[in-house]
Amino acid sequence: MERIAIIGLGLIGGSIGLALKQSDVGDLQVAGTARTRGTVQRAKKLGVIDIEAGSAAEAVKDARLVIVASPIIAMRAVFEEIAPALAEGAVVTDVASTKGDVSRWAKELLPATAHFVGGHPMAGKEAQGIDAADADLFRDKPWVITPSVDASESAVNTVVGLAQLAGAVPMFMDPDEHDSYAAAISHLPLLLSTALFSVAQGSAAWPELAQLASSGFRDTTRLASGSPEMAHDIMISNRDNVLHWLDRFIAELSRYREIVATGESEAVIEAFARPQIERENFLVNGPPRRDEREPMEKVSLSDMLLGSKISGFMNKQQEILKAAEARANGKRP
Amino acid sequence: MERIAIIGLGLIGGSIGLALKQSDVGDLQVAGTARTRGTVQRAKKLGVIDIEAGSAAEAVKDARLVIVASPIIAMRAVFEEIAPALAEGAVVTDVASTKGDVSRWAKELLPATAHFVGGHPMAGKEAQGIDAADADLFRDKPWVITPSVDASESAVNTVVGLAQLAGAVPMFMDPDEHDSYAAAISHLPLLLSTALFSVAQGSAAWPELAQLASSGFRDTTRLASGSPEMAHDIMISNRDNVLHWLDRFIAELSRYREIVATGESEAVIEAFARPQIERENFLVNGPPRRDEREPMEKVSLSDMLLGSKISGFMNKQQEILKAAEARANGKRP
Repeated sequence: MERIAIIGLGLIGGSIGLALKQSDVGDLQVAGTARTRGTVQRAKKLGVIDIEAGSAAEAVKDARLVIVASPIIAMRAVFEEIAPALAEGAVVTDVASTKGDVSRWAKELLPATAHFVGGHPMAGKEAQGIDAADADLFRDKPWVITPSVDASESAVNTVVGLAQLAGAVPMFMDPDEHDSYAAAISHLPLLLSTALFSVAQGSAAWPELAQLASSGFRDTTRLASGSPEMAHDIMISNRDNVLHWLDRFIAELSRYREIVATGESEAVIEAFARPQIERENFLVNGPPRRDEREPMEKVSLSDMLLGSKISGFMNKQQEILKAAEARANGKRP
Repeated sequence: MERIAIIGLGLIGGSIGLALKQSDVGDLQVAGTARTRGTVQRAKKLGVIDIEAGSAAEAVKDARLVIVASPIIAMRAVFEEIAPALAEGAVVTDVASTKGDVSRWAKELLPATAHFVGGHPMAGKEAQGIDAADADLFRDKPWVITPSVDASESAVNTVVGLAQLAGAVPMFMDPDEHDSYAAAISHLPLLLSTALFSVAQGSAAWPELAQLASSGFRDTTRLASGSPEMAHDIMISNRDNVLHWLDRFIAELSRYREIVATGESEAVIEAFARPQIERENFLVNGPPRRDEREPMEKVSLSDMLLGSKISGFMNKQQEILKAAEARANGKRP
């Protein structure tokens, strides 16, 4: 019987629990804890966890894998609490939307006998909380894994196995590289979406605007329904990257403003045609390939937990980190 | 046998055709035309239309209802072409995303023996063209109807019947009022969505960003996949309203930038919590009610085409237009 601990039972923690419980990975026992006792009880009732733990320290006892799914800002305190209680050789991962601070806290606070490998499953939906938990939330979505250079191969493979078990697409990145990219592809959209809802809802015409709102407005503002606490943590912990991309976006919007104001037909068409064509290309062909981002070999979480499988991930990971470093020494993306 | 003409067989024209053909409205014959013969043939094959018309003038012959679903900029020429061919008493409507120019062209070009009632079904999806046509595209979506003050009651009811037959929620607005609101709730999101995709795709880091792109980025940029031609026509025909809302949005984004840059926790939480709560409220309770926006009585398209039903829409419409006028004399929304 392998024990897994989940600390934090919101949408992400809860969905990971469901994915684990509904998998065929075998003899797993999932212990979970959350800020309120009601959430923990609800998680048990929904089949997200097997064992209700009264605290993070209690949850991680004897756990081979610990998944920290608390709000980012709370993670430092969680690491402090679980550090003395972690089993020898335990693998610790997290699901935070930013990875720089969390990686540094883990290095500072977790014992050398445990293995920390950061993670970020990039998935979400309009609804929040344990009742929105969904075993399929991560299916075909990216799950970024940000191992430190000294992470053990088996610890990395355990987290890869977790991502694969949830149906996600694992990919390796350096924590700071992740934060820079996530600012563009995730945190900037969150800001825009929120500001768009805010400007429409704050207008005196909101009753009329709301009646006209259709799927376009709804999709464009979906991210505004995310947890304000998570948004706060992202903005605080990834501030400089977010500001960098926000400034780039405002410059791009100003370019569009100029094109619309000038009203020159050819320029207006081009301004919309290029993104339309490129997005079609992206939807049909997927991301442009760079050699170092190869699809990963399938590994199983149970194999990984049992330490029975040795694969080539460690080498691949080293290559990727070297490539990332080379890029980091070049210009900012 | 009642004849209906559809001019323009893209996503919207095609979807209206499908909705008409799949309805139980009875003995309808739908004639359709489009810019290319291939599209017209495809529409026939897909069951969108019964009769392939070689031109707009040919399509409208003997039609009781004419639906102009061409690009906005082409509508002036379509009106010129169909004007001499329209049957006595024909009802003409359109589906353009902006209503001011189209209403003025109709007034100028269509004969007094025909009845123009503008419309804007507010629906769309990622895919474009006749092959993306979908009878359910309009279900539960707003369908704005912009009658002129001298429109006949039966003509207005015919267009209300069309909207209801397609499963949409008809609502009345003044054409210029519509354009101001649509700039905020539809054209601004289109601009943001496109600029967001553009700034991400234009980055040197696009291969990495694309791999991290998940449902959030996809939803937020969905509108960037719309027809560039339609975007062009919207930006040209609704330029001043779009610029007005774009400036308001840039100001709002700058407010968010300041909050994030300052990094004061309480302000950051509040900036995300208010829209989150208000959007939840909107999703659960729908648009805030104003008395004049009452739900409409159900009328049937066939009743309307046969002119057999007299209902109270005309009065309601007059009230709404008066209220709109009163608001227009107040401050800009």
